[in-house]
Amino acid sequence: MAEKTFYEKIMEKMLKRAFFYPSCEIYGGFSGFYDYGSTGTRIKRKWEDFWRRFFLGLEESFYEIQPAEVMPEPVFEASGHLKEFVDPLVQCSKCGYYERADTIMEEQLHETFEGITPKELDRLIKEHGIKCPKCGGKLKEVTVLNLMFNFDVGIFHSVTKGYLRPETAQGSYVCFKREYKANREKLPLGLAVVGKAFRNEISPRQGLFRMREFTQAELQIFFDPDKINEHPMFPEVKDRVLRVVPASEREKGEQMLSCEQLVQKGYPEFAVYYMARVQEFYERLGVPLDRFRFYEKNEEERAFYNKLHFDVEIFLESFGKYTEVAGFHYRGDHDLKGHQKVSGEDMSVLKEGKRFIPHVLELSFGVDRNFFTLMDLGYREEGKRQWFSLPAFVAPWTAGVYPLVKKDGLDKKAREVQRMLAEEGVDCFYDEKGSIGKRYARADEIGVAYGITIDYQTLEDDTVTVRERDSTQQERVSISELAEKLRTF
Amino acid sequence: MAEKTFYEKIMEKMLKRAFFYPSCEIYGGFSGFYDYGSTGTRIKRKWEDFWRRFFLGLEESFYEIQPAEVMPEPVFEASGHLKEFVDPLVQCSKCGYYERADTIMEEQLHETFEGITPKELDRLIKEHGIKCPKCGGKLKEVTVLNLMFNFDVGIFHSVTKGYLRPETAQGSYVCFKREYKANREKLPLGLAVVGKAFRNEISPRQGLFRMREFTQAELQIFFDPDKINEHPMFPEVKDRVLRVVPASEREKGEQMLSCEQLVQKGYPEFAVYYMARVQEFYERLGVPLDRFRFYEKNEEERAFYNKLHFDVEIFLESFGKYTEVAGFHYRGDHDLKGHQKVSGEDMSVLKEGKRFIPHVLELSFGVDRNFFTLMDLGYREEGKRQWFSLPAFVAPWTAGVYPLVKKDGLDKKAREVQRMLAEEGVDCFYDEKGSIGKRYARADEIGVAYGITIDYQTLEDDTVTVRERDSTQQERVSISELAEKLRTF
Repeated sequence: MAEKTFYEKIMEKMLKRAFFYPSCEIYGGFSGFYDYGSTGTRIKRKWEDFWRRFFLGLEESFYEIQPAEVMPEPVFEASGHLKEFVDPLVQCSKCGYYERADTIMEEQLHETFEGITPKELDRLIKEHGIKCPKCGGKLKEVTVLNLMFNFDVGIFHSVTKGYLRPETAQGSYVCFKREYKANREKLPLGLAVVGKAFRNEISPRQGLFRMREFTQAELQIFFDPDKINEHPMFPEVKDRVLRVVPASEREKGEQMLSCEQLVQKGYPEFAVYYMARVQEFYERLGVPLDRFRFYEKNEEERAFYNKLHFDVEIFLESFGKYTEVAGFHYRGDHDLKGHQKVSGEDMSVLKEGKRFIPHVLELSFGVDRNFFTLMDLGYREEGKRQWFSLPAFVAPWTAGVYPLVKKDGLDKKAREVQRMLAEEGVDCFYDEKGSIGKRYARADEIGVAYGITIDYQTLEDDTVTVRERDSTQQERVSISELAEKLRTF
Repeated sequence: MAEKTFYEKIMEKMLKRAFFYPSCEIYGGFSGFYDYGSTGTRIKRKWEDFWRRFFLGLEESFYEIQPAEVMPEPVFEASGHLKEFVDPLVQCSKCGYYERADTIMEEQLHETFEGITPKELDRLIKEHGIKCPKCGGKLKEVTVLNLMFNFDVGIFHSVTKGYLRPETAQGSYVCFKREYKANREKLPLGLAVVGKAFRNEISPRQGLFRMREFTQAELQIFFDPDKINEHPMFPEVKDRVLRVVPASEREKGEQMLSCEQLVQKGYPEFAVYYMARVQEFYERLGVPLDRFRFYEKNEEERAFYNKLHFDVEIFLESFGKYTEVAGFHYRGDHDLKGHQKVSGEDMSVLKEGKRFIPHVLELSFGVDRNFFTLMDLGYREEGKRQWFSLPAFVAPWTAGVYPLVKKDGLDKKAREVQRMLAEEGVDCFYDEKGSIGKRYARADEIGVAYGITIDYQTLEDDTVTVRERDSTQQERVSISELAEKLRTF
């Protein structure tokens, strides 16, 4: 039997310990859908909480909102999704096999064809004599498929077409005016949404990386375009070094450039400031800088309205390549202008005697991809020992609490310690089953950061042993100091 | 102008300060959909966090999972939703007006007709000569409308019908086997889901009380039916007094019955134990017991598979009546058996030498209704002063931090205090705008629990004033003791 790949190995471990699994497995699964299990849900929620603490903490006028997932048609007329949110689709005239046209081209010609028009793809298919990869049959004409799910809302003459949002961002745009007013008309105003989005992907694949239902964490920063070249906090980040691949210098690979150098190269200060924060976010999550980069898209690759577009990429062992985990987009006034046009609602603001439509800087994170990234980066093997090395604040539990044996009052004491820690805001579970070594190993498997063992000495002097997951080093700590030591916020 | 009703008053305040507002307002709204704004999202998340802490903290084997919102058809064949999840619908043959048949009957005959079959409703409409309430026209035959939204997932020969889940519970049922195995085959096993559900309501209304997209927090407790008459923790709750309207004694109204008395009346101990916890949950949220009750449904009113069904109701000033905010259902083996039948997957477990299909006790909370309930119960007026009295742990912010004036270093000190508190896990905002009185009033309006003012004395002795929202009492507290005093978990 062939040795398991890295990807297979970590997937197996995650499936077994209920990180996530195919949706509706008892019905044979549901292509493109996954369920987060009891372990994964804790990690995912903690990642989301950290994301909120970090990004909403950046400015006093950044807020989270929770707009509905179903939205009516005019929203997507305004955003351009009705017309533009399509994939080029090609089907075999003989065997019926279908696939994204650009994917078929990519597989056969080993080049990237993302963003090429259907017409152009048709021409290229003929030019290169591309056939069906399954049966060699002739391919039909390239068509387009809109990726939004839609359905009737209401009944009879009150039916409206409802769309499952394909991104959370539109909610922030349509709520902008109300939030701007309710929050004392400050700019920049940040509106964040952490929630589900839905796309009818033609070929969902790669586990959590192309799903039909997925979670996004997106922050839309509305600001005065005249202030694009300034940010009051810039001095704090100006000497920080970011790892960037500028579109105009791809041949140089990743460059280490200070924020100040990036501004000198012409990137706007307001944007560079937030790039520094995005990199900081990943550094705090323990991502090694040499596996992280901002990969800039050039004018042909990015959407026409984006004035600046970086993919935030991390090198994943699972795929052996840099993989997009977030996006950084300067979208200009495209969004508010579009909604103003279709809704007839004036989206401009009056600030400092000037009337204008705010511009938008978007930080967009794929939560499922980021979840997977934690595991890909965190997986460790050492002899027979295998574990996930997760930062304590995104570990499914900060600690496990274990009585050495379940008698002589050790179990009772351990439960007391667990309850006390819970009350102090440290999440930990109690486990009394099996040898201490097995309990440690079981906790390591899901990335629990610490093991707290209650032994006979505990009964004498109110100290416990605290074992750190990665080093397996143990130290004795007084119970009264435990919570302070383990608290992760 | 007529004086505003209580409901209008609190709605106005919530709209103004971004608790929630109609979805896609700039497009004229979207019937049955609401967006949570920057204030409401914080309160809603805190309510959800409290729900998790409380209910998942009840047993070591209770977990949260996050199953997908879109599910394939067989799930709802098994659950019975395909056939049974319908509303009786009647339309006027003259003007086209339509409404739920039971609602029309209710409005004209002032009785409740919930759960009556369409055929029976037809008969009653004829018998009572019910006409269209809008134009007096003749009503057409009563039809049924399935309330689930559905759409095609995939394309061509790979299309599957996908349904937006009408309740979160089904996710727990289809994940049961995997979670049972991953969590060492313990019973009771609790699987909780906090997430969206969707229903194509015929006439959405009453703001957050009948929405087409809404949030549920549901806990499914899987247990051994032979143990229905025992719960190891029962002694802890046996003397607690619950407020209950038993189905067989409705004429007596609300009765104060101890858990022990309820068991003596024949309610199973395992269920009564969790009833006590549900009431405790609401007591911790500050709900006065004389506005709370368990209202039992009788055999005709409850679903055929429910062996026991209580509506958890709270008396809301807004509607002048007891209103359902949660449900308590003993569902037997209906769910797992249904999924076993349709999926062919064996759902039984082997415990203590015995093979059986676990039974399910369901605690089901409507998050939006509970959100609204907080505001309805919390609204206070005193002369010109108006505020929401929310428990600190569900207030949008625990505290506001205010420099008395924004000079002489008071502002800098205030920001330091705010940052220090944030690092200690106390969420608070900074505000320097306007007089201190106005800042207090503005914070009271959204239910912020405390106001922390930094004045000249602070610079001398590192103390601040802490003002409590409801009493407006102030006390001087040392900065070093602030976090401990204000922490809400």
